[in-house]
Amino acid sequence: AQAAPVPDAILQQAKQLRDQALVDDTAYTLLRDLTTQVGPRLAGTEAEARARQWSVRALQQLGFDRDQIRIERFELDGWVRGEEWARVTAPYPQPLVVTALGDSGSTGPIPVEAEVVLFESIEDVEALTEGALTGKIAYVSHAMGKTQDGSSYAYFGKTRFDGPGIAASKGAKAIMIRSVGTQSHRMAHTGSTKWPEGQTPIPALALSQPDADQLERMAADGETIQVAIKATPRFVGKTRSANLIVDLPGSDRGDEIIITGGHLDSWDLGTGAVDDGAGIAITTAAVDLIRRSGLQPRRSIRLVHWGAEEVGLLGAKAYAEAHADELDRHQLGSESDFGAGRVYNIGADLPAAADPVVDAMLRLLAPLGVGQTARDYTGSSGPDLSPLNDLGLPSFRLLQDGTDYFDLHHTPDDTFDKIDPEALRQNVAAYAVFLWIAANTDVNFRAQDPAE
Amino acid sequence: AQAAPVPDAILQQAKQLRDQALVDDTAYTLLRDLTTQVGPRLAGTEAEARARQWSVRALQQLGFDRDQIRIERFELDGWVRGEEWARVTAPYPQPLVVTALGDSGSTGPIPVEAEVVLFESIEDVEALTEGALTGKIAYVSHAMGKTQDGSSYAYFGKTRFDGPGIAASKGAKAIMIRSVGTQSHRMAHTGSTKWPEGQTPIPALALSQPDADQLERMAADGETIQVAIKATPRFVGKTRSANLIVDLPGSDRGDEIIITGGHLDSWDLGTGAVDDGAGIAITTAAVDLIRRSGLQPRRSIRLVHWGAEEVGLLGAKAYAEAHADELDRHQLGSESDFGAGRVYNIGADLPAAADPVVDAMLRLLAPLGVGQTARDYTGSSGPDLSPLNDLGLPSFRLLQDGTDYFDLHHTPDDTFDKIDPEALRQNVAAYAVFLWIAANTDVNFRAQDPAE
Ligand SMILES: [Zn+2]
Ligand SMILES: [Zn+2]
Ligand SMILES: [Zn+2]
Ligand SMILES: [Zn+2]
Repeated sequence: AQAAPVPDAILQQAKQLRDQALVDDTAYTLLRDLTTQVGPRLAGTEAEARARQWSVRALQQLGFDRDQIRIERFELDGWVRGEEWARVTAPYPQPLVVTALGDSGSTGPIPVEAEVVLFESIEDVEALTEGALTGKIAYVSHAMGKTQDGSSYAYFGKTRFDGPGIAASKGAKAIMIRSVGTQSHRMAHTGSTKWPEGQTPIPALALSQPDADQLERMAADGETIQVAIKATPRFVGKTRSANLIVDLPGSDRGDEIIITGGHLDSWDLGTGAVDDGAGIAITTAAVDLIRRSGLQPRRSIRLVHWGAEEVGLLGAKAYAEAHADELDRHQLGSESDFGAGRVYNIGADLPAAADPVVDAMLRLLAPLGVGQTARDYTGSSGPDLSPLNDLGLPSFRLLQDGTDYFDLHHTPDDTFDKIDPEALRQNVAAYAVFLWIAANTDVNFRAQDPAE
Repeated sequence: AQAAPVPDAILQQAKQLRDQALVDDTAYTLLRDLTTQVGPRLAGTEAEARARQWSVRALQQLGFDRDQIRIERFELDGWVRGEEWARVTAPYPQPLVVTALGDSGSTGPIPVEAEVVLFESIEDVEALTEGALTGKIAYVSHAMGKTQDGSSYAYFGKTRFDGPGIAASKGAKAIMIRSVGTQSHRMAHTGSTKWPEGQTPIPALALSQPDADQLERMAADGETIQVAIKATPRFVGKTRSANLIVDLPGSDRGDEIIITGGHLDSWDLGTGAVDDGAGIAITTAAVDLIRRSGLQPRRSIRLVHWGAEEVGLLGAKAYAEAHADELDRHQLGSESDFGAGRVYNIGADLPAAADPVVDAMLRLLAPLGVGQTARDYTGSSGPDLSPLNDLGLPSFRLLQDGTDYFDLHHTPDDTFDKIDPEALRQNVAAYAVFLWIAANTDVNFRAQDPAE
């Protein structure tokens, strides 16, 4: 008889790992320590380097051998925040709460002061003729709402990703956008922006939601709005980041890899608790739980603390490049990088032969509120795994509830006090089940279904 | 037969005013305009002066005559915020979110860097010997919780009011306190502090709650904490503020005054929506509703927009002084200065003869969720009326639900988007009922009960 896709002994072990995870605070302690002892850790800075040192120390304290931990360095173009403020000078003089987007240009030492032209969407800016914004500051609003799966970020994020480049191409001196976030506190939301090839970066700022409201109320009064901006971020030339990798070596299928992890870098405004200290803590605790169990997986389990995710998936790209020769040995993966909310669904686009494996995971996870996937998942296995998805890694992800994620994400409010320890434990349990089952089956997740 | 304490016709009119208030957005519009068109309005600054000009304009637009509006100026010692930041330099280098308390001293251009000594309460600092904090930065925590009536602020506010003076008297170079607030966002809470006679002000900063947590976690790791602080607020010498006064003249009892209002100044971090734009808007709309009704009250109804409340009740003291000769003509009053939450109770310490008057108010307000008072109220009629209470004005106040007030109060988050228009209308209705009934009764609220 053929072996079951997931033998009973493996299910029993997975169940034990799950139940241990539910009463274990390793992830919470890791997250407390990372956010407290390192704090903000912007890609390419000495703070991100301190975070890597912290990772090495933390993994050793858990019990990993130092020589199991590999550091794979890569270079990037560094960018750091400077001074930043904005002030309405007419008609109603008052300060605005702003923050520079990643890779924003600088005003230089002399503030820029200009008339603000308001747009309801980035499409309205795109429709302008060339030079239409010459000498002006563009302001772009939008109406991002909350979604459980984060799809609103994918849709409305365009205002941040592409808006500054579009406004610059129309001649704008600077751009301010309504924060791509879902809270109404006086905090602006940073994040990277993209400049078209050859475009000189202009100052690109996000306004907090209340400040965006304020600007729009002023406009509703029919007055011409004049704003002074100062922002002095700097491109600091070549800096370094790295990916940190640790493997639990597999037995008879040890050349096959089940990959997980999170990204170690964070934006500089908060302490990177939900983005992505939580992912680091959850996946590290899950892998450590398996290590501590003394059980050896059949496939190797790989934990990665990616570097420089926030500034363009640079660690992800470096990983794909450095591991080009073993990409087809990556069987399955899931990165945790959507906050610290509970896992509620499994997204999977796998061959039919893998159905019983996912069913086995769901059977153990349903009691934790993880439901049945529709199995037509089209997302990635996580941002840092997306280059591998593009190269053949099948799509699979433990999907977290992100309804409130954009209340915190990329703001000063991304701090440890926002973490629910119970939700964190549930995540660790889900990852332990996923990793143990995926690493102990003969099912080939990369197999193609026969053409129908 | 003696006239009823509140004649039926008056009750009917009060009911009509109430019902009109519940469908009228005058207060909401006033508050929108004040917070948008003026924004922050720190006592004694040109922004507070612009707010007064706004008040005059807004009252005229409502229909008050310019010559009904009196401006009573007074002087104060001005203080303005400068640059301000703090940064942990050891053991875990990272920025902290801070703000200077009102009347904080300055570090000067060179940041102060020193070891932080942590205390759980201001009483622990008070217990130190003289000089015990020499060369150190004191940090004081506490555990202010939410209370519906704001009593936690009165109790825990001591950390802010007195803490800096106490720490300075023990030789501290600077003090940081956990914000006297109840939210967990990355915003620090300002507010005035008091220096003992002869004490040179030291830099006095509030930390946001997450930053206070962070500092306490570092201390729990057993490490000595070193912090660098820069804060450059300035005392700017004599500046001016003013109270704005407008009366609805009464008829046969026109020399008696029913007084209401709010304070026009705000802290500089937010736009003063709940503190105290709401009070200005609510009381102005209520008085305007009565003016628009065409009805003349028997007693005069006085609306005051006090100046410079935040920096030590300076407008309140100036009012008491300027009106010394008519203080005993102030029959009853209530200031609205506890946010924009619904009125839920009436606090009153009045002679027994006034019971039927309060009952009449409650009868009309109970449908709006305003309950029966215990009638042993020992609070004031509002901060700006407290000097008058000390001089014989009986205690009376429409008490608002302040459960969430300290989430916003004195922080950058005190902005218009936090306002619930329905709660604002309920407040206007309550004030209209109070004013109309109090102004149209023969009951002498200042009468002493006969000794028992
Ligand atoms: Zn992330
Ligand atoms: Zn991110
Ligand atoms: Zn106030
Ligand atoms: Zn106040």
